[in-house]
Amino acid sequence: MKLSILKEHLNESIGHVSKAITSRSPIPILSGIKFDANEEGVRLTASDADITIQSFIPAEKDGVQVIRLDQAGSVVLPAKFFGEIIKKLPSNEIEIEIRPPFHATIRSGGSEVQMVGLDPEEYPQLPLIEEKKIVSVPSDLLKTMIRQTSYAVSTSETTPILTGVLCSLDENGLKFISCDRHRLAQRETPLAAGEEQYFRSVVISGKTLNELSKVLPDENALTDIVVSDNQVLFRMDNLLFYSRLLEGTYPDTSKLIPQQFQTEITVSSKLLTEAIDRAYLLSREEKTNIVKLIMNEDQTLEISSSSSELGKVTETIPVEQLSGNLLKISFNSKYMLEALRVLDSEGVKLSFTGAMSPIIIEPLGETKVLQLILPYRTTN
Amino acid sequence: MKLSILKEHLNESIGHVSKAITSRSPIPILSGIKFDANEEGVRLTASDADITIQSFIPAEKDGVQVIRLDQAGSVVLPAKFFGEIIKKLPSNEIEIEIRPPFHATIRSGGSEVQMVGLDPEEYPQLPLIEEKKIVSVPSDLLKTMIRQTSYAVSTSETTPILTGVLCSLDENGLKFISCDRHRLAQRETPLAAGEEQYFRSVVISGKTLNELSKVLPDENALTDIVVSDNQVLFRMDNLLFYSRLLEGTYPDTSKLIPQQFQTEITVSSKLLTEAIDRAYLLSREEKTNIVKLIMNEDQTLEISSSSSELGKVTETIPVEQLSGNLLKISFNSKYMLEALRVLDSEGVKLSFTGAMSPIIIEPLGETKVLQLILPYRTTN
Repeated sequence: MKLSILKEHLNESIGHVSKAITSRSPIPILSGIKFDANEEGVRLTASDADITIQSFIPAEKDGVQVIRLDQAGSVVLPAKFFGEIIKKLPSNEIEIEIRPPFHATIRSGGSEVQMVGLDPEEYPQLPLIEEKKIVSVPSDLLKTMIRQTSYAVSTSETTPILTGVLCSLDENGLKFISCDRHRLAQRETPLAAGEEQYFRSVVISGKTLNELSKVLPDENALTDIVVSDNQVLFRMDNLLFYSRLLEGTYPDTSKLIPQQFQTEITVSSKLLTEAIDRAYLLSREEKTNIVKLIMNEDQTLEISSSSSELGKVTETIPVEQLSGNLLKISFNSKYMLEALRVLDSEGVKLSFTGAMSPIIIEPLGETKVLQLILPYRTTN
Repeated sequence: MKLSILKEHLNESIGHVSKAITSRSPIPILSGIKFDANEEGVRLTASDADITIQSFIPAEKDGVQVIRLDQAGSVVLPAKFFGEIIKKLPSNEIEIEIRPPFHATIRSGGSEVQMVGLDPEEYPQLPLIEEKKIVSVPSDLLKTMIRQTSYAVSTSETTPILTGVLCSLDENGLKFISCDRHRLAQRETPLAAGEEQYFRSVVISGKTLNELSKVLPDENALTDIVVSDNQVLFRMDNLLFYSRLLEGTYPDTSKLIPQQFQTEITVSSKLLTEAIDRAYLLSREEKTNIVKLIMNEDQTLEISSSSSELGKVTETIPVEQLSGNLLKISFNSKYMLEALRVLDSEGVKLSFTGAMSPIIIEPLGETKVLQLILPYRTTN
């Protein structure tokens, strides 16, 4: 194999696939990046057995010759060292040559790097995925849906299925759900699809979705989601992101969400977030994160926290609308802040069915996001 | 005590004095910030027993009324909580009221914060310092001198004196020296001073100087350095920074620096730094940081590192000037990079007295900076 390639393109591609590299892989060859070159371009592949990312660099892009190929070929190069050194090479033009067996020489300006490569034949095959259930979603929408749900997955490995986000597609559209034992996040979006495309119980690791989010393009390009029995593939322009699905049955969360409410209030999202953030500062010192919310007769909310050692924070903010009974309720302020921060809405609606029942947090407007947190049972 | 104060000024001041707060002080009152208010302004003091920082907020600044005083007084407030909450208060106007014994109420917009304060009488006194030896240095020069020396202090507590920077003033000017067992950094600057101002053997902790650096103003304002037997005071505009001096005798480093050289070369600082940085990447993987430098007949330098597992990096850069014998020498690339990065010079001169003798690194030009690193004794 012999070719020359422009640094910025190679760099970007290494940056993408490196998301799949774990520092200590039990399978030695997975600490490398597979490098395949032919006249169409260069394909980089990296994997940690659960996630596999493949990035393609076309030989020509926007009229610029990115790659000059002298001889096609393949090799596996050590991911960390390869990625770091490429970033720091002095010239934008990088020459890569592989000599038998898998000995790489990389030249750029006054730099020459010798690198011991591995046999590409020993690199695992890409996951096989049946292209039956495919649906296309705008990348930025997908990114938002991930942000609005993945933060609420469980971090405890005692119930592995809850470390994932439940994804489903049916006549109501695409739906992401996450929950741990204290809160739930749910995002839906309408999406036209035929019945043969519908899927249920597809659970993708929250961590994996966060890695995906980093490589999803910001622009409104479409990303294909291809779902099979045990794998999902996110297909972007020149980028494939495979992930194994989590095994197990995701609990039915629909019963957790109250259908009728005693009290509903709407408030400014900014005022509420900032007030809870200040109360959180003190509650954090107490290591409880407990913040109390009291609805007053005069259309104000009182938000407070206290610490026997440090003092007390009391916040008063106006309520824009209130219907139902006035209520006192306590909750974990960290959870509340995390829920409020992903809403992307100026106004927020909070719904309650009593001091011991879940709090529902929703943005005003059409976007179907629902955040639920359980209250604290306090004595006063 | 009762007053109102503008948030940005209070914030900046808290930011400055907080540099002296350690998270777990053995003396409980030192986890607080002392707050003294009178008609001139507000004075904040924080200390960790070794460092004491005092910041003054004048009642009026640039024609703006910063503080409106209703009643003078003092209190000690918990540094962390006070600092965090002030930063996040909703309005730029902050009202602070202390009621007996030391109960603070802080109001801003819809926020009311109760804070349990402590008795200011129990707060330690400021260090007493004899104002005999005073010298004024431009703040930005002082900052540069700290940056060029403090990085090379020892991090090992086995020889505490070497964790400090040796400062002296005599007819040659102001001089900072730091060294550990592998390298030395030295910076001098001419400074007119009378003999009664001269000082020697003033050793200030490298960490302390880095904290000082963060509060030194960027502009070319003068900072007074006041030296006494066991304390130094850096006096800036509205800011006092006291530090205890390190006790012990600093070793005589003058004999470490060779006076005659076999070989001298000048090279581009940027080319040399980048080439060594790439060789460092590989040497770091070997955990040795060993990089080899070879001077070639054709006025080039070859810089290389190798790893039996990963491969080899070979860099070739032009030498601008060379006098003396061609030499091969090995060194710790991390130390060399740190020395090169503080030089602030386009060209760099390296001087050698043999493969087993110290390497001297100096900028081209008038600035008197000298960096020394010991070579590695390798077999080839």
